[in-house]
Amino acid sequence: MSIPLIINAVGRAVPSEINGQAAIPFKGVGKHRPEGKKHAPSISTCSDYPDDGNKVVSSLEEALRRCGIKDGMTISTHHHLRDGDLISNMLFDIACALEVKDLVWFPSASFPCNEPIIKYLDDGTINRIEGSMNGPLGRYVSEGKMKGTAVLRSHGGRVQAIQDGEVKIDIAVLAAPSADPFGNARGTGGKSACGVLGYAKADYMYAEKVIVVTDNLIEYPCIPMEIEGNYVDYVVVVDKIGIPEKIISGTTQITKSPDRLLIAELTASFLEKSGILKDGTTLQAGAGGTSLAIAVFLHEILKKKGWKSKLGFGGSTKYMVEMLEQGQMGYILDAQAFDLDSVISIGKNANHIPYPVFNAYNYHSKGNLTSMMDIMILGATEVDLNFNGNVVTHSDGYLLHGIGGWQNCLHARNVILPIPLFRDRIPVIVDEVTTLCGPGELIDVIITERGIAINPLRTDLIESTRNSGLPLKSIKELKEEAERICGKPQKAQLEEDIVAVIKWVDGTVIDVVRKIKV
Amino acid sequence: MSIPLIINAVGRAVPSEINGQAAIPFKGVGKHRPEGKKHAPSISTCSDYPDDGNKVVSSLEEALRRCGIKDGMTISTHHHLRDGDLISNMLFDIACALEVKDLVWFPSASFPCNEPIIKYLDDGTINRIEGSMNGPLGRYVSEGKMKGTAVLRSHGGRVQAIQDGEVKIDIAVLAAPSADPFGNARGTGGKSACGVLGYAKADYMYAEKVIVVTDNLIEYPCIPMEIEGNYVDYVVVVDKIGIPEKIISGTTQITKSPDRLLIAELTASFLEKSGILKDGTTLQAGAGGTSLAIAVFLHEILKKKGWKSKLGFGGSTKYMVEMLEQGQMGYILDAQAFDLDSVISIGKNANHIPYPVFNAYNYHSKGNLTSMMDIMILGATEVDLNFNGNVVTHSDGYLLHGIGGWQNCLHARNVILPIPLFRDRIPVIVDEVTTLCGPGELIDVIITERGIAINPLRTDLIESTRNSGLPLKSIKELKEEAERICGKPQKAQLEEDIVAVIKWVDGTVIDVVRKIKV
Repeated sequence: MSIPLIINAVGRAVPSEINGQAAIPFKGVGKHRPEGKKHAPSISTCSDYPDDGNKVVSSLEEALRRCGIKDGMTISTHHHLRDGDLISNMLFDIACALEVKDLVWFPSASFPCNEPIIKYLDDGTINRIEGSMNGPLGRYVSEGKMKGTAVLRSHGGRVQAIQDGEVKIDIAVLAAPSADPFGNARGTGGKSACGVLGYAKADYMYAEKVIVVTDNLIEYPCIPMEIEGNYVDYVVVVDKIGIPEKIISGTTQITKSPDRLLIAELTASFLEKSGILKDGTTLQAGAGGTSLAIAVFLHEILKKKGWKSKLGFGGSTKYMVEMLEQGQMGYILDAQAFDLDSVISIGKNANHIPYPVFNAYNYHSKGNLTSMMDIMILGATEVDLNFNGNVVTHSDGYLLHGIGGWQNCLHARNVILPIPLFRDRIPVIVDEVTTLCGPGELIDVIITERGIAINPLRTDLIESTRNSGLPLKSIKELKEEAERICGKPQKAQLEEDIVAVIKWVDGTVIDVVRKIKV
Repeated sequence: MSIPLIINAVGRAVPSEINGQAAIPFKGVGKHRPEGKKHAPSISTCSDYPDDGNKVVSSLEEALRRCGIKDGMTISTHHHLRDGDLISNMLFDIACALEVKDLVWFPSASFPCNEPIIKYLDDGTINRIEGSMNGPLGRYVSEGKMKGTAVLRSHGGRVQAIQDGEVKIDIAVLAAPSADPFGNARGTGGKSACGVLGYAKADYMYAEKVIVVTDNLIEYPCIPMEIEGNYVDYVVVVDKIGIPEKIISGTTQITKSPDRLLIAELTASFLEKSGILKDGTTLQAGAGGTSLAIAVFLHEILKKKGWKSKLGFGGSTKYMVEMLEQGQMGYILDAQAFDLDSVISIGKNANHIPYPVFNAYNYHSKGNLTSMMDIMILGATEVDLNFNGNVVTHSDGYLLHGIGGWQNCLHARNVILPIPLFRDRIPVIVDEVTTLCGPGELIDVIITERGIAINPLRTDLIESTRNSGLPLKSIKELKEEAERICGKPQKAQLEEDIVAVIKWVDGTVIDVVRKIKV
């Protein structure tokens, strides 16, 4: 690659151009000042739409044709159907049949169920994916097989990129568990309910053309309107938009591992003893097995103390719903539902509310929910001695995960990473993260089964836990302990070629992912 | 005025330039095709806003200063506090004290309570009002005293103008009955509840700077978020945003006039006998005294027949709420609440839902609710032999009313105008309307106490009511009858000077208002 690299504010060499578009290197947290105006899609007129509000067309193919699908377009989808999504694959089956080439797929996330997309990356239907690449797609990218360069953004960064016009969506294809013929749609009802459709909002507001695809066409008005029909061009009815049992992710099982349970217990204990957990606290618990256990422990503490969390921010789970229903949580503000209990709760509890991603996560906005959150529980594939975090690659260099809301959530008051000291005998705490997704200055506490490391910047937390009896260690001590057990890990074997870039929440480039040496 | 006039598609002479900005003459219903992109406000960054989400500043003056208020800016307000609004006047008191000049006031409507604004039009603080001018402000404009030319738009036309960038709002000052320190706000709660805040949405989405003013600061999160805090720059707390007893308009009293009751009865009878009223019908009833009586009569028919209206579109009133609560209406979709019963209903009935003006009324959108409505009951100050309607001026030429959603609602399937044959011995049906606000092709039926005139274009309705026993007449017969009683009305005595222009729903100019000859 002949594009010049620039060393950014966290010392990573990043390209000045990505897929033919100029790129800005990361300048430091809060340092980049955006200029210019938001993206402005074309003005429509009602005279082009049916007076009776019926926008149903016969098939997705018909809708794509009417939207003028052509080579090089950017097609967006949302990920609320998670690993049960049937629409993204169907969409590219059609694009391929129509012999359209060089598309950009811009999902809010992708899942292993999207593995069939690989054949369309191979045959040139799709030039590249801009979005998370879990599992097989990530492996494909890591091996240098994708034509274009992948661009990974956080959920908030994706909204920022759409709003700012860095990514211009030509056609948004939005699966909807319920929709009316006008295109109003929601995440509840029908056989493919996913709870909320928050990640579709930026897409329908800013895309040139919008197609709603549903397997549950209901009479107008489809209320609440998570997708507003006045932004929608066509409505398509299909047999099935998703596989119900896979829409609800299997990740929402409490860990049974004794080590992970210990981490969860230590985390709850740390939050209590440090004084971070208090009456009126705001928290996001997450949906991993350890996070769920933490939610259960925190719930117990709240009950014991007679305290109430003011609000929880979702991805929601059964365990947050229990806090809400039993009176230990005031509201759940929700960007996505991870399990069936959450889907049901959104439908019936007035204080379990779909929350706009613009408001929660978009850094190019007038404030975000995340910076107001007291407790933020997050994961990582690696953390390094400077508390920098990695969530996208493993230590072997393979790109296997998306960023999700992780970067956005780093702006919370207390960012806690409960992580095992090692996974499959590979240390999680390392000298330097393989991919730097979040700068260490935003990561406050690392909690492992063998000790807790507080970021030296957080002198307040060091002070408040001094005589707590908690197993406090330096991060260096934790790293050395891991290496004593597992040995010094091998650095990933990588080529020079850049296969993916990682954007920061402000659209600048914080790091890259390089091709695996095979 | 030396600006050339152009004869538009309805034969009215309109200027090619208004307040220094090029203007497009009306081309016919659905004929103007907009070009270009939507308006794009500047990109913000969270780094300019407090991490704790607290945007409260000490006063409205402080907020206006921080927004950089200066000469020539456009300042917008909403009208949900109706004749009880205290914020608009306060705003210009401050602007005057700061010696700012030539502002454009861009309210979603103005009311008699805004009469104090006249002194700021006199002293040059305000150059012009773009918005409705009820009562004293209208009289002032009609007498040629306002420096700039008034621009009147429908509610939907206002949203269209904001979205399309015809009007660029520098600062939106949005009164909110409840708000949190982040700027999330709603129309319910507190001492100044007005029900919904739908007309503030275009303002906060597209303004460069947004100030929320509340007398009821509540803890975050203020749910539901009718104003989304991530668009808000500052929050100001004042003692009172409005006078509660005037927020709820006195217009929502059923008429006691026997003539008006007869009109209401005839209207209900016409809707029943013509077959327009049916099970599953969608309707907007309006809030005038006659309209309220019509709602009551329609409710009785629905009950009698065992029918249910699928939905009613608000401005909501007690009588729509009764239909909803008693099971004769499925939903109320609401843009504004006219009375206390409606305000309460919105707060408690899950099927009484704030409805976005973008979706209902914005013609530069991908479809509108209004074109899907079966029954649309509207008023008029004048109707002419071609069924053209006037809602802004009286026959004496004085500009005394706003357009409201009237033009937008003309797109419904059946537009019914129940109007008296004369008011204060002045005929309402005339040869030619003083000001043409809506083309006759969209107005279907005129119902007076002395007979019903169906637009000849509606051969279907003429057919379906042929043997109904209804007092059907031609509009010419109705006009002649009025003139036999009241005499031929005098034409308004007007100068050449244009004091206001009337925009159509697509931003083109449909007519002008001229200065009164005194």
